[in-house]
Amino acid sequence: MKKGILLVNLGTPESPTPEAVKKYLAEFLSDRRVINWPRSLWLPILHGIVLQVRPKKSAHAYKKIWREEGSPLWIYTKKQAELLQLRMPNTIVRFAMTYGRPGIQETIYEMKQAGMTELFVLPLYPQYSETTVAPICDQVGQVYKSAAEIPDIKISSSFYDHEGYLQLLANTIKRHLTEKSFDMILFSYHGIPVSTIERGDPYEEQCKITTQKVMERIGDHPYTHSYQSKFGPGQWLTPMTRETLKAFPSQNIKKVLVITPGFVADCLETIEEINEENRTYFMENGGEVFEYIQPFNESTEFTEILQSIIETK
Amino acid sequence: MKKGILLVNLGTPESPTPEAVKKYLAEFLSDRRVINWPRSLWLPILHGIVLQVRPKKSAHAYKKIWREEGSPLWIYTKKQAELLQLRMPNTIVRFAMTYGRPGIQETIYEMKQAGMTELFVLPLYPQYSETTVAPICDQVGQVYKSAAEIPDIKISSSFYDHEGYLQLLANTIKRHLTEKSFDMILFSYHGIPVSTIERGDPYEEQCKITTQKVMERIGDHPYTHSYQSKFGPGQWLTPMTRETLKAFPSQNIKKVLVITPGFVADCLETIEEINEENRTYFMENGGEVFEYIQPFNESTEFTEILQSIIETK
Repeated sequence: MKKGILLVNLGTPESPTPEAVKKYLAEFLSDRRVINWPRSLWLPILHGIVLQVRPKKSAHAYKKIWREEGSPLWIYTKKQAELLQLRMPNTIVRFAMTYGRPGIQETIYEMKQAGMTELFVLPLYPQYSETTVAPICDQVGQVYKSAAEIPDIKISSSFYDHEGYLQLLANTIKRHLTEKSFDMILFSYHGIPVSTIERGDPYEEQCKITTQKVMERIGDHPYTHSYQSKFGPGQWLTPMTRETLKAFPSQNIKKVLVITPGFVADCLETIEEINEENRTYFMENGGEVFEYIQPFNESTEFTEILQSIIETK
Repeated sequence: MKKGILLVNLGTPESPTPEAVKKYLAEFLSDRRVINWPRSLWLPILHGIVLQVRPKKSAHAYKKIWREEGSPLWIYTKKQAELLQLRMPNTIVRFAMTYGRPGIQETIYEMKQAGMTELFVLPLYPQYSETTVAPICDQVGQVYKSAAEIPDIKISSSFYDHEGYLQLLANTIKRHLTEKSFDMILFSYHGIPVSTIERGDPYEEQCKITTQKVMERIGDHPYTHSYQSKFGPGQWLTPMTRETLKAFPSQNIKKVLVITPGFVADCLETIEEINEENRTYFMENGGEVFEYIQPFNESTEFTEILQSIIETK
């Protein structure tokens, strides 16, 4: 038996150009799991409006965060796969992206070529959402729908209450609290539409449990919980991170420690949206200290957690 | 977390009548994983010929093996689920049939209602074949294709080389060898078309490994390996159990011990095909002793093995 471990994250355009971003967004935003509107309504909007306007704006943002080796999300996901491979030498560790390259299907084929007889799929989203984890399951299902040979398959749906994950978040926060004092800890998670929650998505509940369990490990300190990255019309989860941060200074909350437990690798939403855009909103409204805790990125402590999830699930 | 364990076997008609058998066979034989021919060719044959002739014949056979509570396969699968539930009280153990009732999809919904947050699917086929295990994966995939919430999912593809399974087979054979002497041990597995093997099905290889590893645990004794239950035209795996048994007496093999390691519960193929039909072929051709080792059925040693598979996979 040769175990294959596939780490999966959302994806990234191949370069920070409007053309590459358009290609990436077209794939991402065509997924029914992501945008659940009737196709006849959504596809004209997507192709006629969204993909005409947004790629340029997004490419501009991607350009700001792009590094020599590529997009941060891609770099750190790759790095985590490499670190995990070192810790688990008898397995075949690979990474893939739900949208863009390397794709889930091509990576699974490649793992099979490499001798894999058992597949563990680990979506790199601590909290489950239909909009992120389910598309991965769909694609894994697609691979095996027409395959004659199916290996043992495991798909992890979430790790929002994994002991190691919670403890690592808590330890990181505690380190910051020892060095400096803050009026508030803000837990910011990627938002999703309220309609998705109403269809049965456990995402909001899992985010709340993560925040609560991390705070249990920290003890008595003011904290709050919000959602970022709203896209399109319709109601999304509230309170919104942006509004929360804008309002803080007027509530005499001027020193804030921000953490984004839903992201395990830096990306547009953390570097650009939180640490630039939202920092600016806060400071412009009278904030004094805005300290942002980076995702785990290439932390080897996180590699250990990944290994523990794989070994205990 | 509440783990759900779903044992799955092939299925059985709801009663031993031609109508019930027709309904069951129509479902079973319409599956592309089972009969891989072009639909335009196969469906007219299925509905025009097979389902006109076979249900009557099959119902007759089912009548012979039917018990008060139902079909043996159904009875023993249910019993194993109950025994496993007793051993694993903190889980939700259920059983389902790929074809017929209770169905995989309805059972998974019911497990979700019962609070399941983690699903382990254990097909009750020790050896993987696209014709048996893959339809289960297809149906599990179907459940989650349109579901908002997806739990942790594990699907076991086979347990043909599981230590406990091999040892239990070997122990049972050894017990028979101590009591009586045989000229030959015959391992008979359900056959599949050669074309399925050519498409990449590892079934034949896994059957061979099971036989070999059981024999390693038994030591020096004549044995052979064959395939039963051929259906329809086309080349199937050989040698065929029927031909093997017919030829034995002329090769001076008159006392035979038969085991069917691919079946974990008694069914038409074991009770009627092996222990009646094939026994008759052997005896009519000059055989003297035909001893058949029943499948595990309601053995609690097998329950332990199921638990070990679940806990170690």
